This record gives sequence, C-alpha cells and structure tokens, in this order.
Amino acid sequence: MPIITLTTDFGTKDHFVGAVKGSIYKELHEAKVVDISHQITPFSITEAAYILKNAYQNFPEGTIHIIGVDSEISVENKPIAIQLENQYFICCDNGIISMITNEINPEKLVEITIQSSNDNKLSILDVFVKVACHIARGGTLEVIGKQIDDVKKLYEIQPQINVEKNQIVGSVIYIDNFGNVISNITQNTFNNIGKGREFEIIARNYKFTKIYKKYNEIVDFSTPREKRHDDGKKLAIFNSANFLEISLYRSNLKTVGGASNLLGLNYRDNITVRFN
Amino acid sequence: MPIITLTTDFGTKDHFVGAVKGSIYKELHEAKVVDISHQITPFSITEAAYILKNAYQNFPEGTIHIIGVDSEISVENKPIAIQLENQYFICCDNGIISMITNEINPEKLVEITIQSSNDNKLSILDVFVKVACHIARGGTLEVIGKQIDDVKKLYEIQPQINVEKNQIVGSVIYIDNFGNVISNITQNTFNNIGKGREFEIIARNYKFTKIYKKYNEIVDFSTPREKRHDDGKKLAIFNSANFLEISLYRSNLKTVGGASNLLGLNYRDNITVRFN
Amino acid sequence: MPIITLTTDFGTKDHFVGAVKGSIYKELHEAKVVDISHQITPFSITEAAYILKNAYQNFPEGTIHIIGVDSEISVENKPIAIQLENQYFICCDNGIISMITNEINPEKLVEITIQSSNDNKLSILDVFVKVACHIARGGTLEVIGKQIDDVKKLYEIQPQINVEKNQIVGSVIYIDNFGNVISNITQNTFNNIGKGREFEIIARNYKFTKIYKKYNEIVDFSTPREKRHDDGKKLAIFNSANFLEISLYRSNLKTVGGASNLLGLNYRDNITVRFN
Repeated sequence: MPIITLTTDFGTKDHFVGAVKGSIYKELHEAKVVDISHQITPFSITEAAYILKNAYQNFPEGTIHIIGVDSEISVENKPIAIQLENQYFICCDNGIISMITNEINPEKLVEITIQSSNDNKLSILDVFVKVACHIARGGTLEVIGKQIDDVKKLYEIQPQINVEKNQIVGSVIYIDNFGNVISNITQNTFNNIGKGREFEIIARNYKFTKIYKKYNEIVDFSTPREKRHDDGKKLAIFNSANFLEISLYRSNLKTVGGASNLLGLNYRDNITVRFN
Repeated sequence: MPIITLTTDFGTKDHFVGAVKGSIYKELHEAKVVDISHQITPFSITEAAYILKNAYQNFPEGTIHIIGVDSEISVENKPIAIQLENQYFICCDNGIISMITNEINPEKLVEITIQSSNDNKLSILDVFVKVACHIARGGTLEVIGKQIDDVKKLYEIQPQINVEKNQIVGSVIYIDNFGNVISNITQNTFNNIGKGREFEIIARNYKFTKIYKKYNEIVDFSTPREKRHDDGKKLAIFNSANFLEISLYRSNLKTVGGASNLLGLNYRDNITVRFN
Repeated sequence: MPIITLTTDFGTKDHFVGAVKGSIYKELHEAKVVDISHQITPFSITEAAYILKNAYQNFPEGTIHIIGVDSEISVENKPIAIQLENQYFICCDNGIISMITNEINPEKLVEITIQSSNDNKLSILDVFVKVACHIARGGTLEVIGKQIDDVKKLYEIQPQINVEKNQIVGSVIYIDNFGNVISNITQNTFNNIGKGREFEIIARNYKFTKIYKKYNEIVDFSTPREKRHDDGKKLAIFNSANFLEISLYRSNLKTVGGASNLLGLNYRDNITVRFN
C-alpha cells in the first residue's frame, strides 16, 4: 500500500488534519499516512513548494502527496493530479507544481473531474482524499480526471543572472527551524555560472568567500575544544537541499538568535554572488 | 484493527505523547494511533470538545478516541467510556461528552472500574490506554466498567434565543489556525430560528447581511484577476463544521492578521443574529 | 516489525522530519515510525535526554530510537548505536547516552562504521536511517559498527549533596507544556538522602514542606466545589517521571501563567531540599 503524505497550512491544533486522516482511513483502512508539514504559512505556496521539493525525493516510488495549501477549488483554482518521477501530487493548479518541478509530462497530468459528494467547503477532505485513495488502490489518473497539457507557471523564485554571467542575484526563500537563511540559488546554478571561479557572496553587509561542505567544517578540530570559539560563527553552505544557505554555526535561537535575526536577513532579501 | 486517536493538552515537545503511544504499542503492537490534536489549551474541555466534535465523524466505525484533557482522576472526575454512533470515547466525566453530543445512550456508557496498575500520575498512560486496547481487541465496555445512567452536563456553549424567536445571541468558541472567529451558532439553529427571513449578523461594530457558502464566493471571477482586491475582505460563512464563522478572505496572519485580531473578536465575545 | 522513534530538534515546519520518514519507508516499507519530539531546543542534548529518558521505557522491547539532536558527524562527534534494556539508541557520542542511563554494557555498544552513501549533510537521513532499518530487520550491531568500551560522559545534570547528607541542591532541568518546573532531583535521591526525615524545599523565595502524590491531592473534595479556590495553588510533587516538580494546580498558561513565569523559576535555577 503506497504512502499518502500531507502538506498543509492547517496547523496542528485545529480539527482539520485529524478530519483529513479520518477520511482517508474511512475510505481505505490500510492506508499509511505521513505528515510532511502542517505549519506552512497560510496560503504560501512558495513555502509549501520549498518544503515538498526537499522532502518528496526521499519517499518511495508510488507515494501520493496531498497538498492542502491554497486548495479551495474555484474556476481559477482547479484541482489537478500529476505523476512526477513515479510519485503523485494532488493539489490545485495554483502554480505550486511549477515550483516543485519544471519537468511536466502532460501524459501524466489531469484536471480532476470527480465532484465533491456533498457541499463540503474543505475540498481536500473530500475530492483530494478520494483521488489519493483511488491512486493508492492502483487506480489510474484517467479515471478521475481529464488529461490537460500544462499547469499554471510561477517563476518568482528564480535567481537573476546578469548578461555578463558573472553575477547571480538570488533572494531569501525560506528561514528554517534553526534560523538559517536559505536562498533560491542552487548548487547547480552556482556551478554552472561560476565554473570554478573565485567568488564573493554578499548578504546585506556581510561577505563570504567560501562555501562550506559541512557545518562543522568551520571547526579546527586540531585546536583543543576549550580554546575554540566556533559557536555562532557565520558561514555559507550548500544545505542538504542543495540551496545556498547563510548559517550561524550552532547558534542558540533562544538565547542569541539565528542567522535570520542576527544578520537581519528576511524573506525576499537579496543574496548576491559575484564571480571574479 | 480499529484506530485509536489522541486529543490532549500535552503539547508536542514533552515526553507525554510519546509515552502514551509507546504504552499503546507495548499493549497492542498492531495498534494504529492517530493524533487529532495535542495543542488544546491546558484544561480547556471546551476547545477539546469543539475539535473532537468536528473531527470524529470523519473517522471509520469502531474508532476509539482517547481524550487527555482535564483527565486527572478524582472522586469528582471519574474515568468513563462511552459508545457514540459506533465510535468510542474514553475520558473523564468532566462535561466534555455533553459538549460533543447530547444523545447519550446509557446502555453504552460505563464508569471505568479497572484500577491503575501502579501509582501512575498520568492516568491516561495507564487506565485509558488499557481500556482503549481492550476495546480495540474487540472487548466490551461491561468488562472494564459498570453501567451508569448519565454524564455530567455542561451547557455553557449554547447560544441564547429570545422569546420572540427573532434573535440569536451566540459567542465566540474557537479561533482557528487562520484567525477565523467561530461562533457557537450552528447552521441548524440559524435555519430553525430564521426560517428563511432576512437577517443581520452583528459582531462588535461589524455587520453582515449575507452568509457565504464558500470562502471564494466573495470573488467576482468575471473581473480580471489583477483588478480584484478580495484578499482581506470580511465575510460570514458556515464553516466546514457548520458553525457560523467570521473570516477575512485569504488574510495573511503574519503580515496583516486574521479576523480575530483585525476585527478585535476574541473568545466569549458575542456574535448576534437578528432576523427581520 | 519493531518501532522506530524520532527525537530531533528539527521542528515540524521544515522538510527534515518528512525527509527522514520518507527515507525510512523507502528503505523498509513496513516500518512503523513514531514521533517522540521534534521540538527540542536546537542542540540541547540535555532536553533531548530528559524527554527520551521519560518516554522510552513505555515502548515495547526492540524499539529503535533515533536521536537527531547535535548529530552532525565529526571526529569528535562519532555516530554510535547502543542496546539498553532491550531497546536501541542511535545517536552521536556527545554525552546524551550518559544522561539517559548510567548503565552501559560495552558488549552492546558500537561506533557506527558504515559510511554515508553520498555527500549528505544530514547524517541522520542517511547513516542513522540505514542503521535503524538494519536493526529493525533483525540485524546485529556488530555488522554496522565496531565495539567500543565507553561513551562520552556528561555529569552536569546531577544534583549536589552536601557532606552532612542533609541537603540536596538541584537545578531546573525542564519546563513542561503546563509551565511546570522540573528539577533534577529524583524521588530515589530524595528518599535515599532524606530517609523519611522532615524537609523543606526552597525554590527562589518559596518554601514547600509537603510533596504531593497527585496534583489534585491539594483539593479538599469535602468542601463544596463552589467554595474552593484551588486553581493556581502552588505545590511540590514527584511528577510522572519521578522528578521533583514545582507546579501551580490547573493554572491557565494563557491568562495567568504557569509555575515557571509566575514563580520566576527558569532553567538552571536552584531548587534546594533541606532535611531536619
């Protein structure tokens, strides 16, 4: 039985998540439901896309991802189901798929045509759950939808590259649980433009000329532990999702703060890479 | 194997929830445990009742709901188990059941008589888990308790209807993850009293003369998207749980706020409906 | 199939927890994953140890606990796996094991020698998941590691006992979801030193001469309910984890506050017991 994951902006206090899980188990008792996140900022498909993009590839083939963010169905926000790399995504056509992948195979893309069985305002509770259970049982997309050619595209999270190809202007797209500041500059983009040249990363008035491979690469382990003062040092790193990230090494969020508040870097702020 | 759900005020940081799940799996390895909420305001059976009332009907028959809110056992707070619509609830007799349903069948109601096996201060960890696993294995209520006739009643969350039957005075019983303000006025009560008459809803100094069927019904989709300014518009709606709710359409809680703080509506504030 | 639990400082918003679960299910589809906590203060192995120590004994034999706190692997922070009382712990050798137990059997202790299959920065995603699934399948520790003799020891959370053996100076090690203030003084230590003598507990300028067995033991149930004023009364209790705790009975955190903020007791503050 494939896994069904949930990514929503419902929070974990209200009844919504429990109601969705109950509906899935009522429809398909053997289902295996896994939470990815319910803490998405309300209506933020950018955040949901960042989180899901970095989570889904760890899941086994056949996994079905329900996205309950900006998912009220309307003439402009149609429910879709799509197969990507042998996994499935059920969401509304609000641009989120274009931020998760840019490889859409229209053969594996449908607009969902099954209707809500009642006047349910929480479409995810009804239409999305039915579609997920249909796929989990081995059903095909054609049965629950009609093939469409493309999805709505959103490009806002792409970094800008200048014509001379010596500068990338990215922006902060996510701040994680540790206060790390994550840009939209991927290791691939960096390598393709930089081609091994020296570089300078500018984030506000801070500069970085090295990108670490691991956080603790900043530590000189040959110095005795009691003589080191590494905690809180700022560093640039390609994070586990392969995005350029500004971090403070082991910074204590509660007492001191993380990169975001200590360096004053927030959502949409620029992070610039200049190559020599 | 039926599902066992958990609704508690334990939060998700402490060891309590993990300990309860471990205890269930130790007692019944094949158990399927589903979280409904652990973010209930400490000791708030009103919140727990609202959340569980709106979640449980989505679960399959046979589901067993453990309620770990105000659940320290005492002479005044006795543990009970009750069957409602082919589902089971295990909690203390503190009034919460009367807020979830008013249809009590005493044939399906027992005071739990099995004792804590040790001096455990967390009764849910011990008595509730044992009872839940007993029911999950197909055991009957009589084996773990003695039949009682009724449960403690709490009426505080009923809206008041005047003698002329042209006014309902409700109050705010819940504020959800989106900042939506939820009253205790159900669609049923509204329809029964209103009988199709025109009406005015008064919440603080705001008035509403329409109740929407879907949030996005407020959008005029015939206007081009770039000319619309719908985000943040206030509206009244019967929410997915069929309660009258005041909402700001797609309001961003982080930057602007939701209905609760922007309209100044908080727990226990009045929401009044006047029929003409 | 044994349970695999997760205790991390990842929070529940980011993709990390979902990614770890996906990796486990990809490696071992029938795995049963249970969250203990993801809200550990970043890098706080003290908190993680307190939570896990109080949770793990509730789990069935064979359970495998992954600890993703301070788990970036380095020459000073080696990955280890250990068997304790028929359960397994996978973590880094950063001292956390010494805070969970002081009974290490070196025959059941290995330094993990399997390597990360790629350049993964999130070692838990890779090494820890592989080891957990190996053990879950029935594999032995020797296959994935080499036996070592001991783990790093951290003693900071032990209370101090004076030479006259009539005083215990403990400190606050945890503040729970209800604002309760938990010291590092166990019921065992208290009994061993106190030997039944009268005592005084001093926490800031508050004194306690009784330790309750249950929270509601503070209530005089013979007084009519409407004449009682018990809510908010302060009390000392050995909590469900058998640590000495200062609590305010049923205090409402949102409106009034809990023991921590109302009594001004915070992490590392002293709590002293004096015996007569």
